[in-house]
Amino acid sequence: MRKIRMGMIGGGRGAFIGAVHRMAAALDGQIELVCGAFSSNPKKSKLSGKDFFLPADRVYGSYEEMIKKEKTLPVTERMDFVAIVTPNHVHFPPAKMALENGFHVICDKPATFNLKEAKALQKIVKKTGLVFALTHNYTGYPMVKQAKAMIAKGKLGKIRKIVVEYPQGWLSTRLEASDQKQAAWRTDPKKSGAAGAMGDIGTHAENLAEYITGLKITHLCADLHTFVKGRRLDDDGSVLLKFDNDARGVLMASQISAGEENNLRIRVYGEKGGLDWSQMEPNTLTARWLDKPVQLLRTGSAGIYPESSNATRIPAGHPEGYLEAFATIYLNFAQSVRAYQAGKKPKKQFSDFPTIEDGVRGMQFIEKVVASGKSKSKWTKF
Amino acid sequence: MRKIRMGMIGGGRGAFIGAVHRMAAALDGQIELVCGAFSSNPKKSKLSGKDFFLPADRVYGSYEEMIKKEKTLPVTERMDFVAIVTPNHVHFPPAKMALENGFHVICDKPATFNLKEAKALQKIVKKTGLVFALTHNYTGYPMVKQAKAMIAKGKLGKIRKIVVEYPQGWLSTRLEASDQKQAAWRTDPKKSGAAGAMGDIGTHAENLAEYITGLKITHLCADLHTFVKGRRLDDDGSVLLKFDNDARGVLMASQISAGEENNLRIRVYGEKGGLDWSQMEPNTLTARWLDKPVQLLRTGSAGIYPESSNATRIPAGHPEGYLEAFATIYLNFAQSVRAYQAGKKPKKQFSDFPTIEDGVRGMQFIEKVVASGKSKSKWTKF
Amino acid sequence: MRKIRMGMIGGGRGAFIGAVHRMAAALDGQIELVCGAFSSNPKKSKLSGKDFFLPADRVYGSYEEMIKKEKTLPVTERMDFVAIVTPNHVHFPPAKMALENGFHVICDKPATFNLKEAKALQKIVKKTGLVFALTHNYTGYPMVKQAKAMIAKGKLGKIRKIVVEYPQGWLSTRLEASDQKQAAWRTDPKKSGAAGAMGDIGTHAENLAEYITGLKITHLCADLHTFVKGRRLDDDGSVLLKFDNDARGVLMASQISAGEENNLRIRVYGEKGGLDWSQMEPNTLTARWLDKPVQLLRTGSAGIYPESSNATRIPAGHPEGYLEAFATIYLNFAQSVRAYQAGKKPKKQFSDFPTIEDGVRGMQFIEKVVASGKSKSKWTKF
Amino acid sequence: MRKIRMGMIGGGRGAFIGAVHRMAAALDGQIELVCGAFSSNPKKSKLSGKDFFLPADRVYGSYEEMIKKEKTLPVTERMDFVAIVTPNHVHFPPAKMALENGFHVICDKPATFNLKEAKALQKIVKKTGLVFALTHNYTGYPMVKQAKAMIAKGKLGKIRKIVVEYPQGWLSTRLEASDQKQAAWRTDPKKSGAAGAMGDIGTHAENLAEYITGLKITHLCADLHTFVKGRRLDDDGSVLLKFDNDARGVLMASQISAGEENNLRIRVYGEKGGLDWSQMEPNTLTARWLDKPVQLLRTGSAGIYPESSNATRIPAGHPEGYLEAFATIYLNFAQSVRAYQAGKKPKKQFSDFPTIEDGVRGMQFIEKVVASGKSKSKWTKF
Repeated sequence: MRKIRMGMIGGGRGAFIGAVHRMAAALDGQIELVCGAFSSNPKKSKLSGKDFFLPADRVYGSYEEMIKKEKTLPVTERMDFVAIVTPNHVHFPPAKMALENGFHVICDKPATFNLKEAKALQKIVKKTGLVFALTHNYTGYPMVKQAKAMIAKGKLGKIRKIVVEYPQGWLSTRLEASDQKQAAWRTDPKKSGAAGAMGDIGTHAENLAEYITGLKITHLCADLHTFVKGRRLDDDGSVLLKFDNDARGVLMASQISAGEENNLRIRVYGEKGGLDWSQMEPNTLTARWLDKPVQLLRTGSAGIYPESSNATRIPAGHPEGYLEAFATIYLNFAQSVRAYQAGKKPKKQFSDFPTIEDGVRGMQFIEKVVASGKSKSKWTKF
Repeated sequence: MRKIRMGMIGGGRGAFIGAVHRMAAALDGQIELVCGAFSSNPKKSKLSGKDFFLPADRVYGSYEEMIKKEKTLPVTERMDFVAIVTPNHVHFPPAKMALENGFHVICDKPATFNLKEAKALQKIVKKTGLVFALTHNYTGYPMVKQAKAMIAKGKLGKIRKIVVEYPQGWLSTRLEASDQKQAAWRTDPKKSGAAGAMGDIGTHAENLAEYITGLKITHLCADLHTFVKGRRLDDDGSVLLKFDNDARGVLMASQISAGEENNLRIRVYGEKGGLDWSQMEPNTLTARWLDKPVQLLRTGSAGIYPESSNATRIPAGHPEGYLEAFATIYLNFAQSVRAYQAGKKPKKQFSDFPTIEDGVRGMQFIEKVVASGKSKSKWTKF
Repeated sequence: MRKIRMGMIGGGRGAFIGAVHRMAAALDGQIELVCGAFSSNPKKSKLSGKDFFLPADRVYGSYEEMIKKEKTLPVTERMDFVAIVTPNHVHFPPAKMALENGFHVICDKPATFNLKEAKALQKIVKKTGLVFALTHNYTGYPMVKQAKAMIAKGKLGKIRKIVVEYPQGWLSTRLEASDQKQAAWRTDPKKSGAAGAMGDIGTHAENLAEYITGLKITHLCADLHTFVKGRRLDDDGSVLLKFDNDARGVLMASQISAGEENNLRIRVYGEKGGLDWSQMEPNTLTARWLDKPVQLLRTGSAGIYPESSNATRIPAGHPEGYLEAFATIYLNFAQSVRAYQAGKKPKKQFSDFPTIEDGVRGMQFIEKVVASGKSKSKWTKF
Repeated sequence: MRKIRMGMIGGGRGAFIGAVHRMAAALDGQIELVCGAFSSNPKKSKLSGKDFFLPADRVYGSYEEMIKKEKTLPVTERMDFVAIVTPNHVHFPPAKMALENGFHVICDKPATFNLKEAKALQKIVKKTGLVFALTHNYTGYPMVKQAKAMIAKGKLGKIRKIVVEYPQGWLSTRLEASDQKQAAWRTDPKKSGAAGAMGDIGTHAENLAEYITGLKITHLCADLHTFVKGRRLDDDGSVLLKFDNDARGVLMASQISAGEENNLRIRVYGEKGGLDWSQMEPNTLTARWLDKPVQLLRTGSAGIYPESSNATRIPAGHPEGYLEAFATIYLNFAQSVRAYQAGKKPKKQFSDFPTIEDGVRGMQFIEKVVASGKSKSKWTKF
């Protein structure tokens, strides 16, 4: 037995999400970073490789080079998978190339630049049979898994109402006009895709709602808006939803909610009770009931299902956060790669991570929500 | 100087909102209950009058009788105003009669049974020049007044986004099929009007949003739904909003959000910061800012404007609640009646209570939101 | 049936606690203010009487005058009880005189100036058989009553640990050097008594701990301190406690905890679980358990005992606050007076208010805690 | 440049704190685990080594063997430091041996089994000049560092009152009678030392209070108690404190506070304001002020000092937890080892971790608090 070997695409010096992926991959001691193409700028890639203590010959000038060269290395040495942490328009090409060269893939969300790419990628994943994970990291939180399990077991009865919201405030001003790299590509339609806030964080909200409830959105009615002058993509939007069991919902995603940090929250109401979870205090799941007192379900504490406690590392009261939830996606992905290599199916708990199906669904959401935003009709079919 | 004298219409034994009005009227020692027509059942009215220690000859069998008889009493004795606390379909007739006979009126919300009545009432109020207050009681909270003052002073910059929500869970089952009086009339289109949840609590949300921001809704897009089988009016709804400064918003009102008590909450985001207020912890107003730490503004504490602290009775940290906010409506109404009697204008702080204009607006909201709920077009003009 | 008639001693213009008593007495419509000696300054007393719309001949220049004159009025007119809302050194004399002249008494806490007076008052109450209530108002909160009921029913098992704390910050500076009336008498040993913070708010903490748990303090070990230079009484103290079932505890009272408003909180831990209640969010009682999820018990909501819900006026989610809790003491007192007048015992729920026994205990606490503060021995017997 | 190499002592299969140390060491990509003596049982040590993908020849049967063998390896290969994660009675011997053989040491708290050992260890650290860190991990939280910086900069004025509390409930029953390993050694005086709860978590509280305020405890007055029958060490205690600037304080540590998870909390009040921090929601530091609104200072957000933001990995609103705080101790330790190897002083931010001085102080605390618990005098000198 050995650690699973990761090659990273993107995520060099100064990148936010690259560092997150590295920490998440490292946390559980199952994965080691062995190589990378950390930047489209080869010099910057080299310097970044040094930061991570990689040997110079495993730091590449481009992902194409990396995939080609790694493939020539002995199986005992070469990377097992690539982690793609580039802007959206550079997801599909390296994912395709990696898969077609036999490497598993873990990729940041949204899956691709547009729906067409996502569907193409779905076919490639299917054809190759390799492991593909999408880092909709919020599904890695133990209390999100608890909520999902409770609903699946029928604790709330039939689901009636879902409210999912994701307010941020960091794009309240025209940050992209300064040199802020994160803002720049996210507000550039050529790099981000058809949607701004709806693509960047709305897809997280959509994914979380469907993950937790097991329901699918069937219709939506969107009002997208750009508040900051000169911005080219939506920075705020609100969407009415219908689900496939006739539940109703509201989804909000905003990057101009001044003063908000990263306040993803979901509430689900059924016939018998309601659940309420907030990402910024992720270790508490509030359960409200028709006929008994409110409960605070706590990570790793009494009354928690295995689906949730399996995703917990330390005793109750020792808060786990964003990186731990992210790491759970990596852990499950790595164990699935390990199972694949052993010619086995992964254990059920390890197959719990977002896949290309979630990715296709997310790209459909972007396409539909943008279409609805422009439509004069109330409902757009999903 | 003497106490202002109140006659009550409705609110006999077992009524919820009648008791609230009596406590609110009593709290500040400015008003005394002198007579009442507490029930359409004269026997029940009499018994209720005893509960309130009224002399038998001031307890009437009907509001018509009360208004007529009281008018014949000497000015030094007769009631100054009526408080109308009946179901919605019995708001307009007594309000009209009271005003036309020279009595001021304070009335529970929504103003009337339908928009037509509201407009008629508006004319009568105007013609008589008497004082008319509508108990949109949530505007009486000190931290709501603080929010309004901060926005009016431009502390948030231009307003961009408003999210107002009012989830309750008490109608998650078909309570009206049992003998529950509160549920029965609220779900009966002949007593409640065209809307269920949207009329009962959606109007509070609409009023609160417009009161705090000073903005007006111009367009709405509603999805109304009835979840409980056999119910005749909406029990849940979500509405996209546009405001007259081009701000966007979401309004949710629900009585099937299982486990929720009375969780009215409003968030307002401007260019510089955001405000967040929840009725269930009403003494804290959270202010978030683009460039400085989150603040918790607290009733009666440092940094509070006079518009807010004027509506506070006790030192910070001694929580004031629902009845105190309600009482502030009564207090301001009573002081306005006192000013009227003295032939003066009330002090500015005392003129801060909801009027028939709010009432007309609320009835318009009900009409429009019901129309939008049935429409296939996205936007309905307000 | 008629309202119970109140005469007030103290509480004129500008007084904080007098206004609180008047609002609390008015809220439930059972009591009317009929007379008062609102100030030791007769002019100020007269002006205050006007504020409350009292006839001039029922506004007195001194409590002695009031008690004497009222006694001469016909039973159908004269006051039933006095409410004493003066500084501590003027509690005993009017209480004694009122009782000895046949008037029931409700008195602000602490009961008297010193323990000797408290014991003397206890004898008078006993001898006269009249109703005496002490406004340890925090025992009026529904969730405090819920906690008491849960412990009495054994839900927590044997009680092991009690932590009660009462931090305020308003005396962080030498406020008494300015013209602040509230600060002036509370820090004056001739008006306040032997203790400062421990007398003013420490007694509330002591009373709350014993009320909720049904236990009695047997030993204490105090560290009292005066932080503000020139102040003559303690402004901060911490006390270790032993209880009569061998439970241990900590009591803190502080008026120099800068930035704190009125943050009374109590936690009680037993063998099976723990309870946690904070005055500043009084409608939630947190119950933690060894083997099941945390519960949030809410005023008037599912799972609440009658001992608690009897003390609630409005539905769950409509917050009741400080004045309502205070009013519950008044309501129970008034109903007990009514029962006395009818020659009956009050209903059990109405006999739930603090009495002279609580008063004696509070004065003992002050005496013992001051003694312990000066002692070099660890434990002082209560 | 290369990763710093760690050898672990203790922490094999089933150990709680060993896994924590491994995750904390791995998170930032600066440290790699290269060898270990994971158990006093050589077989178990071997199996554990496999779990961590270590080569068999770097997994040792005892720490003595490990230190001896590693010393013989070339400098380019051998471990740089040992991490000691054994029960308290096995801290001193391996720490001594490691230091005397030229290896840096990071050690779990409390430092040693008793004060004598701690002082001996202090001398060895001094003599060898090697880097020694003690994992009082709670000092690694960004908001703890923010609190420390604010106090050091005088934002609160002179400190007056400190309340630090650490309630847990997991030892409410006699868990050590079952096979629970964590409970067994912690309640065994031969393994844990002179104190139970006071040693295990009281020392964290003591360390946190002194770290944040920069003050030193000078006197204490303790009440220690054992609630669970048959238990051999204290499971609950409360302590009055005096500090070297004449501030007063209270320290509570309890493992029988039923239902509490790991609720470490500290409040510090100065002349101008107060700070409030809770480990279970570690990313918020509440600052209360005499004369302005309450502030919620948030990890990585506006208004945070570099001393704090340096210890943050991801943007505000992405919660960091227990493992991240723990990792910050490891990161600073590793960078200090790196500086040592380069013959330099570490950067200021990297020298912020608990040392043997904290360890000696913690052992003194245990000795004094146990002595005070047995004393009849109020104050025991620290």
